[in-house]
Amino acid sequence: MVDVGQKPETDRMARAEAFVEMDPSTLQLICDRKIAKGDVFEIARLAGIMATKRTPELIPLCHALGLDSAHVDFEVLEPNRIRIESAVTVHARTGVEMEALTAVSVAGLTIYDMCKSVDRGMSITNLRLLEKQGGKSGHFLREE
Amino acid sequence: MVDVGQKPETDRMARAEAFVEMDPSTLQLICDRKIAKGDVFEIARLAGIMATKRTPELIPLCHALGLDSAHVDFEVLEPNRIRIESAVTVHARTGVEMEALTAVSVAGLTIYDMCKSVDRGMSITNLRLLEKQGGKSGHFLREE
Amino acid sequence: MVDVGQKPETDRMARAEAFVEMDPSTLQLICDRKIAKGDVFEIARLAGIMATKRTPELIPLCHALGLDSAHVDFEVLEPNRIRIESAVTVHARTGVEMEALTAVSVAGLTIYDMCKSVDRGMSITNLRLLEKQGGKSGHFLREE
Amino acid sequence: MVDVGQKPETDRMARAEAFVEMDPSTLQLICDRKIAKGDVFEIARLAGIMATKRTPELIPLCHALGLDSAHVDFEVLEPNRIRIESAVTVHARTGVEMEALTAVSVAGLTIYDMCKSVDRGMSITNLRLLEKQGGKSGHFLREE
Amino acid sequence: MVDVGQKPETDRMARAEAFVEMDPSTLQLICDRKIAKGDVFEIARLAGIMATKRTPELIPLCHALGLDSAHVDFEVLEPNRIRIESAVTVHARTGVEMEALTAVSVAGLTIYDMCKSVDRGMSITNLRLLEKQGGKSGHFLREE
Amino acid sequence: MVDVGQKPETDRMARAEAFVEMDPSTLQLICDRKIAKGDVFEIARLAGIMATKRTPELIPLCHALGLDSAHVDFEVLEPNRIRIESAVTVHARTGVEMEALTAVSVAGLTIYDMCKSVDRGMSITNLRLLEKQGGKSGHFLREE
Repeated sequence: MVDVGQKPETDRMARAEAFVEMDPSTLQLICDRKIAKGDVFEIARLAGIMATKRTPELIPLCHALGLDSAHVDFEVLEPNRIRIESAVTVHARTGVEMEALTAVSVAGLTIYDMCKSVDRGMSITNLRLLEKQGGKSGHFLREE
Repeated sequence: MVDVGQKPETDRMARAEAFVEMDPSTLQLICDRKIAKGDVFEIARLAGIMATKRTPELIPLCHALGLDSAHVDFEVLEPNRIRIESAVTVHARTGVEMEALTAVSVAGLTIYDMCKSVDRGMSITNLRLLEKQGGKSGHFLREE
Repeated sequence: MVDVGQKPETDRMARAEAFVEMDPSTLQLICDRKIAKGDVFEIARLAGIMATKRTPELIPLCHALGLDSAHVDFEVLEPNRIRIESAVTVHARTGVEMEALTAVSVAGLTIYDMCKSVDRGMSITNLRLLEKQGGKSGHFLREE
Repeated sequence: MVDVGQKPETDRMARAEAFVEMDPSTLQLICDRKIAKGDVFEIARLAGIMATKRTPELIPLCHALGLDSAHVDFEVLEPNRIRIESAVTVHARTGVEMEALTAVSVAGLTIYDMCKSVDRGMSITNLRLLEKQGGKSGHFLREE
Repeated sequence: MVDVGQKPETDRMARAEAFVEMDPSTLQLICDRKIAKGDVFEIARLAGIMATKRTPELIPLCHALGLDSAHVDFEVLEPNRIRIESAVTVHARTGVEMEALTAVSVAGLTIYDMCKSVDRGMSITNLRLLEKQGGKSGHFLREE
Repeated sequence: MVDVGQKPETDRMARAEAFVEMDPSTLQLICDRKIAKGDVFEIARLAGIMATKRTPELIPLCHALGLDSAHVDFEVLEPNRIRIESAVTVHARTGVEMEALTAVSVAGLTIYDMCKSVDRGMSITNLRLLEKQGGKSGHFLREE
């Protein structure tokens, strides 16, 4: 685990996104709250937020940080996709890109888990960093 | 967490895949073992395998299972992609699709973490189930 | 951790309950889905279910079991109480009383966490086992 | 997880309590150190302290904090109750009410676990916050 | 994680030991229950037992098993050593050597933690497997 | 968990070591990368680093700290020993001796796990603190 001890504590932020592709009928079931296991968006949102707190356990060389905030949101992209976006902030010596990426990843996996009995062919795609701020490497904003 | 108590214990298997897209120069650094943080394939493989054991903590409604085996492998797809494939087996009342998907997800995130200082634009894509066997829903094999 | 190796694997079930007492205005906010942090019932339900999987980490001498099912439900008792009930099943050599009790405990604590900014005086009370089945000690049913 | 990044780091403290009600003969066994699983007070104390470190994993929207101290103590209330009190301190941007409440909750559950073979009817009651200090909402002291 | 799916479930047992060497005055403080942090034997015993349940999280390629029993005991070897012995049993497809070794290791580290303010020079030594039973490789008994 | 709230945050460092003794033929297999489970040094190094992040979960009265760095290295001591050395740093109110000791302990256990099928008689020995800096108790350097 690389030494971040000489870096100053600064405000840091990271945003990430991912897309879950599915059968249009599956998206309809989700939006109609007809998935038997429960409210897909609410449970996936919670799973994503909780995963930000587990990130250093999952990613071997990732530093443990006490996060200031974590958010996960969803956008329905008719007819067959859900876009997940996360935002994480911290006041620390290193960044939170991995926490933001882990959040959208686990939120996407949770959507899969809740819908897999009706659609095993779902896929998660374009999981990537959208933006990061703070730290020596400065501002990163993904160009579309 | 749905009741699986009436299901018989059977041999179950799941395989999943994901692709990490990056700059060709990043892939070169990985293959040349020149990433400063360590051997990317070895560390990502281990992170993926260990993640199979944490899956029920991450995915809220996923059952805890004592896995029989877990494997994660990598394929370099010149000039700019790595393909990750996982395989998980268990003798249990429910399947291991989520464990296989979590393995490729965390392996991909670990690749990102190890290379992010040289390539913040990397993305994980086409994360999906390849095959599952065992259980009432039978055999699933993804058609290409 | 006492030896359960000589006990037979049998079907086991446990149910527990707890009550959260609060200001009537707090209960109104919960039922109207006006608590700023999110849907209290949905999040507390999930927290309770997930806690069943962490029980052996929390309770020092508790055996780790692969649960077959876990459920947490809520009942609004006007004007100022919520009743939480959990049910857990397993096919194992020892029982799931602690998992059922941990579920209602963590669900109750989560309700507190989500509402504490408006009502710090909330309390959890009458947290207890309602029923257990299976195992040498037989059937336990709480008498009211 | 709400944003605490703009709050100042201040000294914070929280105290909580809970009561375990049992058969008088059970309390006698505990006080005589005759419970077969071990010293109930010592083990429950440790379980409660360790639970303060797991609180953000259990309570979905709770921030992870590096605690400065955690204490759990017991008071025997003849003929049939044990009172548990916890105290937790931190220098942080948000409070430790949930850590203090989780400590008494897990300590109480551990007492139940250690004595359940002799007294399944035990209950945990009046689990509540006694006091908190620090932070914008100021001092809270429970009135009896 | 190697495939154990074809192995039969059998009764398995493992015992391990380790020695903690310290200043004779430290051993005296422990035996007199004068270490400020608490009862060293009781807390180290509990830490060792709980560590058996975390072993698959710590040892990357170790299978998760639902243990049947775990015990940790101590022997005072005047004038300057404590001997720790663990015993773990399971009915499973693979053995519990790592659980037994992890138990004595974490029990030893906990002794160090509790006494380090008076004796930083303590060391853990001769941490090793004493015996294993069950499985294809048969009986192993360490020869002195 | 003792109160560290009044201590100042200072730079702290700890180094620890342990030795794994084995059959000379086992050491040869490790150095020749012929152990079937994978690269022993790479996997044990990662396990040791990851264990520094789990230390407060394992050691009951240990404070949770956000580490600045963690390193684990190996030295082959022909004909039959591997020396493990860890170094951990933090900017905090309390030290990281336990993290450094846990790192060498878990790295040693992982070496055992990977080689146990060929050499069950391996032992871990002389696990001890080499140095600590920072904090009121000042500099500790082990004398040989």
